[in-house]
This record gives sequence, C-alpha cells and structure tokens, in this order.
Amino acid sequence: MYKIVLMRHGESTWNLANRFTGWVDVDLTEKGVAEAVEAGKLLKEAGLTFDLAFTSVLKRAIRTLWGTLDEMDLMWLPVQHDWRLNERHYGALQGLNKAETAAQYGDEQVMVWRRSYDTPPPELDAADPRASYDDPRYAALGRNQVPLTECLKDTVARVIPAWDDTIAPAIRSGKRIIISAHGNSLRALIKMLDGISDADIVGLNIPNGQPLVYELDADLKPIKSYYLGDQAAIAAAMHAVANQGKAK
Amino acid sequence: MYKIVLMRHGESTWNLANRFTGWVDVDLTEKGVAEAVEAGKLLKEAGLTFDLAFTSVLKRAIRTLWGTLDEMDLMWLPVQHDWRLNERHYGALQGLNKAETAAQYGDEQVMVWRRSYDTPPPELDAADPRASYDDPRYAALGRNQVPLTECLKDTVARVIPAWDDTIAPAIRSGKRIIISAHGNSLRALIKMLDGISDADIVGLNIPNGQPLVYELDADLKPIKSYYLGDQAAIAAAMHAVANQGKAK
Repeated sequence: MYKIVLMRHGESTWNLANRFTGWVDVDLTEKGVAEAVEAGKLLKEAGLTFDLAFTSVLKRAIRTLWGTLDEMDLMWLPVQHDWRLNERHYGALQGLNKAETAAQYGDEQVMVWRRSYDTPPPELDAADPRASYDDPRYAALGRNQVPLTECLKDTVARVIPAWDDTIAPAIRSGKRIIISAHGNSLRALIKMLDGISDADIVGLNIPNGQPLVYELDADLKPIKSYYLGDQAAIAAAMHAVANQGKAK
Repeated sequence: MYKIVLMRHGESTWNLANRFTGWVDVDLTEKGVAEAVEAGKLLKEAGLTFDLAFTSVLKRAIRTLWGTLDEMDLMWLPVQHDWRLNERHYGALQGLNKAETAAQYGDEQVMVWRRSYDTPPPELDAADPRASYDDPRYAALGRNQVPLTECLKDTVARVIPAWDDTIAPAIRSGKRIIISAHGNSLRALIKMLDGISDADIVGLNIPNGQPLVYELDADLKPIKSYYLGDQAAIAAAMHAVANQGKAK
C-alpha cells in the first residue's frame, strides 16, 4: 500500500572522530556528503520519488537530505524539521571520544550507556553551556522537554508522538515520504514498526547514508523492508557501527 | 516594527549566458553560490536572524537560500516553497539568448517584452515540452493556473496573494522572515510595498544575491529599505542588470 524511506545521515565529523555526538550539531564529512548523493542515485534507480520529507533540526541529517534531494532534482520538496527526530541526547558523554571513554570506564559500562534500553548516561549539568535551553531551535519547548540526557527509551517516547502526530497522517493521506534522521531516532521508529523488543532493539545497527525502504500495509504495518544498494557493503557498515564503542 | 529581508538569487548559469530563464530550472554558477554565502555573512554582521523563510520552487532561489542559511547556521529553519514566488514566465522566449533575441527583433521589441508592464512575450505552445503541466511542482494547480507566458502584471497578480495569504500573516505573527526569490517576483513585492506605478516598476533593477532589508510599520508599510553590503558594488550590479537586454 505505502512505501516510505528511512535514512540515517551520512558520515559526520564525529562519526569519524568516534565521539559521542547526540545533540551536538556537527557537520558531515566529505564522505558523508558523497553518501547523501549516492543515496539519491540509488533512490532514483529504484524509481522512487517523494512528496514530503521529514528530518531533525540537526545539520548532519539536514545536509544529508539536501544532498539526496539535490541529486533527485527535488530541492523544492516540502521539508518538515522536527526536533523529536533528533539523535538520542548523550548527556555528559557528548563530545567525548568513544574509545577513550571505554578505556576509562570499561567497554562494559560504555556498552550499557550505548546499548541499554533504559539506562541513560550521566546528565549534562543544566548550567553547562552544552545544554540546549538558549538554542532558538528549542525555544518553543518547556525546560522539562529539553533533555539533559536520554536512554533509548526516552528517545522512543518522543519519536513515537512525531510519528503519530505528523508522519503517519501524511503517509495515510497518500504522501510519499522520506525521513532523514539518526541512529537512535531511527531505531525508535523501527522498534515501533517491526515490534522489536526492548532487549533486541539495542542490537540493531543502522549504517550511515543507506536508504532503507519500508513497504507498509493499509494499517502502516510493515510488509517488508530492505536497504537499497550494495548488500555486502551495507553488512560491513552495520558491523562497523556495532564495534564503535569498543576501546580497541 | 518589523524587519524583513528580500533577496534575489545569486548568479545563475543563464544569467551568465544572458538567456531568458523564466520557469526553466537552471542552477547557480559557482559565483552565485559564493554570493549566497556572502549574503549570509552580511546578514550575520547586521545582527539579523530569522524564524521562517519563503522561496520559490526553482532551484536557483532555493540553493541561494541554502547557502545563506548554511552560513548563518540556520539550516534547520522552516522553509515554505511557493510557486507563486517563481520568476516571471517568459513564454516562448525561455531559453533564448537575450542579445541574439535583441539582434533579431530589435532592442526595442525585446525591451517591450522585458520591461512593459502588461505586454507578455509570445506564449509557449501548450504541447511544447517546456510547458510545465507534467511537473510535480505544479501538479496541484489547474491547467489555467500554469502560465504559458506572463507580463509583469500577471506576475504581480499571483505574487500579491502569496503575500496576503501566507507571508503577511507570518510577519504579523512576529516571525522574522527572509524571502529568496527572483527579479520579477521581487519587483512585484516591491511595487506593492512601495506603491510604485506600473510605468516606474519596470525600471527597477534588483542585483543578484544582495540582501535587501525592509523595515515595516504595524500596517506593513515601509519605513525604510536598504541593501546590506558594498553600496558602490550594488549600484554597479543594478546598472549591469538594466543593460542585459541590449544587443551590444
């Protein structure tokens, strides 16, 4: 009935530096920009097009979308930016190198923070300049809506309303949509779509810049899902994501 | 009371080739992209920021906006794309070189087509592949809404409703806005804002990629307007626009 595309942003400078990024607004690398363009090529080759795009308010997702839409000659496409599609907030870990953090706290603790469903990393201090209270992107939110840290469960709790309020109604109205977002906001969507358990969702790794197609029935339940492009390269990329938190 | 910014897109490939562009979706030159970034710098230096952007559905205006917003670290800004902000449709002249057209028809005829308020150029044939009927950007419009040619009066007749319906209400609601558009859609806005006569508006030349600030009172009447940046360079650019239609 419906076909939607999910896409994690292309490689960012902090993917490359192996840092916890969260809500820090880092940009794409040149490779990340190239991945966005390549995604556009794959989508064109698959005969897909769109009526509406959703993305977060973070530039790595927006620039990925721009690169993809540019390649598809769809720069004019309406785009809805939604902070609820942001990456999981990584709290006080934001900016720290993953391997260094692992060396300090141990692989196991870092893996808990990265992959436990309901254990958030240490909170950012509310007085920390990295807190987002004064950012115009979040000015309309109450203080209690702007997170200082999140576990995946917290991310799910804000992503699902974005789906229910804006994305699902757009799909039901017949709009062909693409969502350019982040590893954990996409995990949240996929958890909901595929009914994945709290325990299993943390093991799902989403590669950068690869269009993921979901075919949905009339009730928006998945019929099937698949990545476009070179399947061996995608498997290797998923494996690399899984290993990012290891010290070595 | 209110401060808004109008901006004509940066140099396009057909500005450079001196061709009639209209609704043909040509891209920016590298110089045009640089102008967009420079505009972003000027806006930041002037202490301006925005809550909402309006642009046409043509990529030269959208890429200009992208370059400016990127430079201002506002990639997340909501953007409304509106076909009513498109350049004037140049009918059967679209794609023709301005100097060649002038050599064939005479400077005077070309000047009439370019600068008469109510004389449209020859219509595009409805069967011409350059007609925009099948373009998804205009799919929601009736056939009688998709122009085959326009004089400036026709452009004014579609730009003013865009102002009345969406832009003016946004300004009144307190949103700081930027409009990235085209020589003739901006002429239409300025004609309305400044109450310029049909005879005089055709002599107004708007340089590429230069932010034009309008300060408006509570009734959205202009208090003053001014270009940001190097005033001598802007005067020279306005003069160059005025001379584009001459054979030599």
